Amino acid sequence: MSGLGEAVVQADDRQEALCRALGADMVLLGDEVERYCRDWHSDVTTGAVAVLRPRTTDEVAAAVRACAALGLSIVPQGGNTGLVLGATPDQPDSQVVVSLERMTKIRRIDVDDFSAVVEAGCILSEFKDAVSREGMFFPLALGAQGSCRIGGNVSTNAGGINVLRYGMTRELVLGLEVVLPDGTIFDGLSTLRKDNRGIDLKQLFIGAEGILGIITAVSVKLMPEPDQVATALVGLNALDDAIALYRCARRDCCDLLSAFEFMPPLAFALAREAIPDLAMPMAGDYPAYALMEISGSGLVDIADLMERFLGGVMEEGLVADGVIATSKSQARNLWLFREGMNEGQAKRGPHLRTDISVPLSRLADFVRDAEAAVAEALPDCISVSYGHVGDGNVHLNVLPPAGLSPEACAAQIYTAKRAINVVLDAYHGSISAEHGIGRLKKADFDARLPDVQRKMLTAVKGAIDPTFVMNPGCQLNFVRDS
Amino acid sequence: MSGLGEAVVQADDRQEALCRALGADMVLLGDEVERYCRDWHSDVTTGAVAVLRPRTTDEVAAAVRACAALGLSIVPQGGNTGLVLGATPDQPDSQVVVSLERMTKIRRIDVDDFSAVVEAGCILSEFKDAVSREGMFFPLALGAQGSCRIGGNVSTNAGGINVLRYGMTRELVLGLEVVLPDGTIFDGLSTLRKDNRGIDLKQLFIGAEGILGIITAVSVKLMPEPDQVATALVGLNALDDAIALYRCARRDCCDLLSAFEFMPPLAFALAREAIPDLAMPMAGDYPAYALMEISGSGLVDIADLMERFLGGVMEEGLVADGVIATSKSQARNLWLFREGMNEGQAKRGPHLRTDISVPLSRLADFVRDAEAAVAEALPDCISVSYGHVGDGNVHLNVLPPAGLSPEACAAQIYTAKRAINVVLDAYHGSISAEHGIGRLKKADFDARLPDVQRKMLTAVKGAIDPTFVMNPGCQLNFVRDS
Repeated sequence: MSGLGEAVVQADDRQEALCRALGADMVLLGDEVERYCRDWHSDVTTGAVAVLRPRTTDEVAAAVRACAALGLSIVPQGGNTGLVLGATPDQPDSQVVVSLERMTKIRRIDVDDFSAVVEAGCILSEFKDAVSREGMFFPLALGAQGSCRIGGNVSTNAGGINVLRYGMTRELVLGLEVVLPDGTIFDGLSTLRKDNRGIDLKQLFIGAEGILGIITAVSVKLMPEPDQVATALVGLNALDDAIALYRCARRDCCDLLSAFEFMPPLAFALAREAIPDLAMPMAGDYPAYALMEISGSGLVDIADLMERFLGGVMEEGLVADGVIATSKSQARNLWLFREGMNEGQAKRGPHLRTDISVPLSRLADFVRDAEAAVAEALPDCISVSYGHVGDGNVHLNVLPPAGLSPEACAAQIYTAKRAINVVLDAYHGSISAEHGIGRLKKADFDARLPDVQRKMLTAVKGAIDPTFVMNPGCQLNFVRDS
Repeated sequence: MSGLGEAVVQADDRQEALCRALGADMVLLGDEVERYCRDWHSDVTTGAVAVLRPRTTDEVAAAVRACAALGLSIVPQGGNTGLVLGATPDQPDSQVVVSLERMTKIRRIDVDDFSAVVEAGCILSEFKDAVSREGMFFPLALGAQGSCRIGGNVSTNAGGINVLRYGMTRELVLGLEVVLPDGTIFDGLSTLRKDNRGIDLKQLFIGAEGILGIITAVSVKLMPEPDQVATALVGLNALDDAIALYRCARRDCCDLLSAFEFMPPLAFALAREAIPDLAMPMAGDYPAYALMEISGSGLVDIADLMERFLGGVMEEGLVADGVIATSKSQARNLWLFREGMNEGQAKRGPHLRTDISVPLSRLADFVRDAEAAVAEALPDCISVSYGHVGDGNVHLNVLPPAGLSPEACAAQIYTAKRAINVVLDAYHGSISAEHGIGRLKKADFDARLPDVQRKMLTAVKGAIDPTFVMNPGCQLNFVRDS
């Protein structure tokens, strides 16, 4: 009992010290801490010594120095929409959340330079809207874009629906400003398109989920806004045909193809469980569907391109049926099936969510084999596979039957994950195509990590964060050199 | 004298030890070493203890271990076409060249996966040709492609003429195999498009110019081959108009624009000094020229797009005159001006070659200011500025007048570089857009390196190559922690 009392007093002392060092306005304590310590799916709620909310890069640096001086470690947090517990604490008694939510400025949009500089806390959709008002386009697009923040997108190297054309977030980043674990500032906020001055240090922080420093601002590429968009949903006789159709689309529509998603027949039922009045886009029931988008600006006739493309592949018999959206609202409606499907799964209760990638030539084979493995292990579960064809990225989710106890449900989720991972390993795939590792996938990552990579990661972590201030517990349990 | 004798004996011992450890077939000694110790421009010739030519990844690993055991350091070399002395030794008595020229296998071309795996020593154009025979396209394109090797392209993060559409080499790399300084092998040769399993270690080696390890194989992205290409040369009333034209082209031709180069009026004269029978492509003499290319596969009519685009901008008055190639040989002829210009400069004798980048919105301003600074400092020199508009990349070269002594010429080159760099620093530009640092630009890099970056680079070097085996003298004179 006395031990516990001591711990509480120590925590209070550190909280007071943070307020003294940083000013009370920056520090949240008590009940206000909780919402920063709960993950987006509300699966896990922990705690933290405090939440710090700096307004400037210098304030972030001061926060890092204050935490280091008090022996506290830091969990950086953006919009807290990550799916792998990368931005929420796991050691409430020694961790402080540094939230970037007050650093929301767009420092510059330079139309002539095809670039922008934006602070880490800016919400992705707000940045996209601001860029769009200047006639430009920032292509990163994902479900959470109304809540996620650009610093988090960079820290997790976010993917989304436009990767096949524009790449992951890494390929959109021109420069970074980062507060390092010693409180110094790495000023790499250039907008140069080409800069081959040695090792590209900013690459270390992209996808590092905050274990090497806190990203405070980002410079990014912009593109001309695609003012023409054509969206189509097609029914297919097999998932293999989606892969074949993608290959045709890459060739026939060239670099104007901007999205190519595959969905199972169940997508429609799931989406309508979430959005009951969603209009069915086509008659018939096909084994697989693809949702594709072509887009562009200027002199190419995108609608005509889509019509000619679909006309050709239907004549060849590669596509069984298809519908092209003739208005923005129709296009929106097609995308609602893709998005509503996720909400529909959530409504059915706890389920396995995966984020797998395999070589794209083997996507259909993998889905077949992995779904068969799940069906064999768990005949009462439903597999729902969808994702991004061009990226070889499958979200193979598994829904346990209704009415199970929480324990039985968790056991089935665990069994399903194991069954899928056995197949995945045989395909040399990745357990995390776009979501990251965080704390949720750490054990699975660790179990598959070759010794050479482990040694290199440990060396890099030790080189940049020798005192392990930054996001301990995330990605890997790093072991300090003795 | 006895000291020198001893040194020779020691060198012989180490040479014998290399032959014993690795087999004589792998080791070149004596006169055979020289051509590996001379840079591409033949400006500098040094020497080396030996040249090692492994045939497999395991043999590279054995070579690294043998060198480390003998206290020898390693200079990795690909095609030795770099322009900054990154792949030639500067310490002949303690350095060994490891040439990848025997590791030339294309391990796999997977059309369905849009990927290939190729060994580091494969010549770029041979790889491109092999890929093309499968109907696919590897977009990296640069003047040295008949001699440079893919490992060197990755180690220098090579740029070239297609960067505006396809990115630098970094953006084309899916995975790497690297022999590390301790002789272990980093096996990161995946072809996954998306793989967010923590820090992306391969990024460290891209652009590292061999200071962290030896790249032995690479997996890369492939695209469908663009079977339609439209090439045009246009005359402009000012370099500013090239920038404005680029902006129009990005919007009107969207992602189908694949090259956009600017050239000075002198380009034609220089090219004809190298290739006397080159036919002049257009009448008139304009202050600036742009060479542009649109390309694609499939259903988009690329020739029609080019015609409509140029028709529009000529009607607007943005372009003064223009010629569209109507055959492959005409297109080749237009590119010969761009390529012949370099050869023409070489024929005029020693001159300053730069490789500068600035924010692309400021390219024309920079060229004007920097050429003015050169003219003021060196009124008898001729400035030749050309490069890649979409990348903000200028090769501002300076030709001293004929008839100078070698010393006077070198002094003028030095003065020109200083004058340009003063302007460049004011524009926050890069002294190396695409060529790297090597040994040639080390002092200029060092002089501009912020302390935070220096500390990080030193930490990263120490983490991966703690005994400084790999390419010492390249990029930075790293100082070991005491």
